[in-house]
Amino acid sequence: MAPGGEQRAAPDAVIVGAGAIGLACAWRAARRGLQVRVVERGAPGSGATWASGGMIAPVGEASWGEEPIVELNLASAERWPGFAAELERASGRPVGYRRCGALHVALDRDEVAELRRRHELQLRLGLKADWVGPVECRRLEPGLAPAAGSGVHAAHEAQADPRALIAALEEALEREGAEVVAGAEVTDALIEGGRLCGARTADGREHRAGAVVLATGCWSGVADWLPPEARPPVRPVKGEIITLRGPEERPVCERIVVTEWVYLVPRGDGRLVVGATAEERGFDVTVTAGGVHHLLREAYRALPEIAELELAEAIAGLRPASPDNAPLIGPGAIEGLVVATGHWRHGILLAPATADAVAALLAGEEPPRSLRPFDPTRFGSKSRRGDGPA
Amino acid sequence: MAPGGEQRAAPDAVIVGAGAIGLACAWRAARRGLQVRVVERGAPGSGATWASGGMIAPVGEASWGEEPIVELNLASAERWPGFAAELERASGRPVGYRRCGALHVALDRDEVAELRRRHELQLRLGLKADWVGPVECRRLEPGLAPAAGSGVHAAHEAQADPRALIAALEEALEREGAEVVAGAEVTDALIEGGRLCGARTADGREHRAGAVVLATGCWSGVADWLPPEARPPVRPVKGEIITLRGPEERPVCERIVVTEWVYLVPRGDGRLVVGATAEERGFDVTVTAGGVHHLLREAYRALPEIAELELAEAIAGLRPASPDNAPLIGPGAIEGLVVATGHWRHGILLAPATADAVAALLAGEEPPRSLRPFDPTRFGSKSRRGDGPA
Repeated sequence: MAPGGEQRAAPDAVIVGAGAIGLACAWRAARRGLQVRVVERGAPGSGATWASGGMIAPVGEASWGEEPIVELNLASAERWPGFAAELERASGRPVGYRRCGALHVALDRDEVAELRRRHELQLRLGLKADWVGPVECRRLEPGLAPAAGSGVHAAHEAQADPRALIAALEEALEREGAEVVAGAEVTDALIEGGRLCGARTADGREHRAGAVVLATGCWSGVADWLPPEARPPVRPVKGEIITLRGPEERPVCERIVVTEWVYLVPRGDGRLVVGATAEERGFDVTVTAGGVHHLLREAYRALPEIAELELAEAIAGLRPASPDNAPLIGPGAIEGLVVATGHWRHGILLAPATADAVAALLAGEEPPRSLRPFDPTRFGSKSRRGDGPA
Repeated sequence: MAPGGEQRAAPDAVIVGAGAIGLACAWRAARRGLQVRVVERGAPGSGATWASGGMIAPVGEASWGEEPIVELNLASAERWPGFAAELERASGRPVGYRRCGALHVALDRDEVAELRRRHELQLRLGLKADWVGPVECRRLEPGLAPAAGSGVHAAHEAQADPRALIAALEEALEREGAEVVAGAEVTDALIEGGRLCGARTADGREHRAGAVVLATGCWSGVADWLPPEARPPVRPVKGEIITLRGPEERPVCERIVVTEWVYLVPRGDGRLVVGATAEERGFDVTVTAGGVHHLLREAYRALPEIAELELAEAIAGLRPASPDNAPLIGPGAIEGLVVATGHWRHGILLAPATADAVAALLAGEEPPRSLRPFDPTRFGSKSRRGDGPA
């Protein structure tokens, strides 16, 4: 055995990254009877997950030219109730899953036009979303600003609490006997005969496994321990997000309220999460005056009562964005690598579908057709292209 | 000696409250050779001082019908350079005193009208303040919003860093051999023969002294260890204040910038303090969405570049307000009591004048005529009035 080698039997998979995606993949794999280990550079959930609104909102997230993503979003949203129930049973911890519904509102004429365009898309995609007038808007959410003249009610949208989700997944994994190694940065790939057979962490420990799952979110694109051709083209997109807090018994809204500029997610315990900016700033996570101003201003425009709430937290996270905004789920560009990253704004929503797909791959199943649009190798590779003839 | 009594010789004065006022009083008294002790419920400077902008700005603070306050403000502002220099020498610590000047700007017609009214008052009071047009505004502060059409330049306004001031005063007091007892809440007055001769703290310790200085800021009005007639009618007025941070070498402004709604104080190290709301909310110190929104919005209106700065801190403090907005400085309603409270927005500005006045009183001098408007007993007392004939 190599120095610094692992004494225990090698697990079936080592998952790199303990965000919502990595931990969910690990848990679903463990549920299938696989031996898994998660290694995480920082603390579990401390990346994009920590700054996530936790919306499970395939209707609201539907966008033009992204039909395959909509399908995956819907499929994952359907898995959520069962996923949440099973996880809560397995962990004994709540994950805050609530099918609270969402109300998209337009606050001026331009926003009405945009909302109508978006609603037409939703109908074309067969999504359940009802156009509602001002009276119905106010009936659904009495706290709305008088300017809220039109809305789209998506009654089936839901939410989970991303931080509670992390705690539940950690607990469930522990109960499965799976190890989550925090504070362990991967520095080297273990490659033998062209096959990835594990990873070495900064402490010198070797994590050998049948497969390595790359679930490092926005840091996937700079995973320089992987060969260049195996690094997915994922970049960080900064999002600033704030948490307001008021009395639990008198929330300013019952549903997720969405405008063209912000979303407001009432957590059910008095917290109201308001997100989020989208800024191309590399790995910068500074909370800015401009970002917080934008969120407060637009939240206030929709629900004036937020002015009375406590500003409990302001943070920034980094979403993992891919060139086509779709996630990367499936076998990577090197044998032994499975990729689960690039989930953009949809990490919490897509956790169940991603985790089940990855667990199936790890169990030896062939990737299903439905995953083809999310093939991690679909963008090719700069280095490979660079190697070819000019 | 009574149980729980003090073994050391009784000091000349015990100062209750270790904010900027209490510590400054203690230090000036110590400089005059008096033995002093400060007792503080929480941590030194943790009250209004911690949330103070630190402006030393008698021109900007001038208001209608408050001529005596203006005079005191001017007198104290004049003392500041010497006070700061002596304190820095005595403590070996900087207090951040900078005569950076202030530029008051008007951003729309209503604000121009209000600023002109205010400038007329300033001139009538003999204050140094120059009306400047848009070109001069921009020359002084190139970062100003294009809307800044008129301004008043008060070139002699200054600032200090309130938190640095606290640290310097603590150090200076230690070097004088004076004790600052933190975490010690006064629970009882020691009254003998109708004279206040000390205070007992929650730990049972008795702090006997020739005089007791009440410097507990907004909590002075609820100092229920004092006889009702000796409690000054001081109430808390909440102020929310934020600190932004940017590169030290490229500040968004050089001077204090003041609009009708906010002030922005550039600290010289990249910090920019933006204050402050004024809210009657009792002792509530919740940082609210509405308060922070207001500060960010109005700061952005004046200096759009603030959007890029980090939102480093958002806190709320409680100003000690009196019925006539003037401080209470002088002998209290019970023999042995000296009052130094009710400094409203002017605690840092008025620290030197207040401290010198209190030190003189403690040294046995008669209160000067100039302090008469600030006589702590000028409001009478509910209980005394209640005792009189109907």
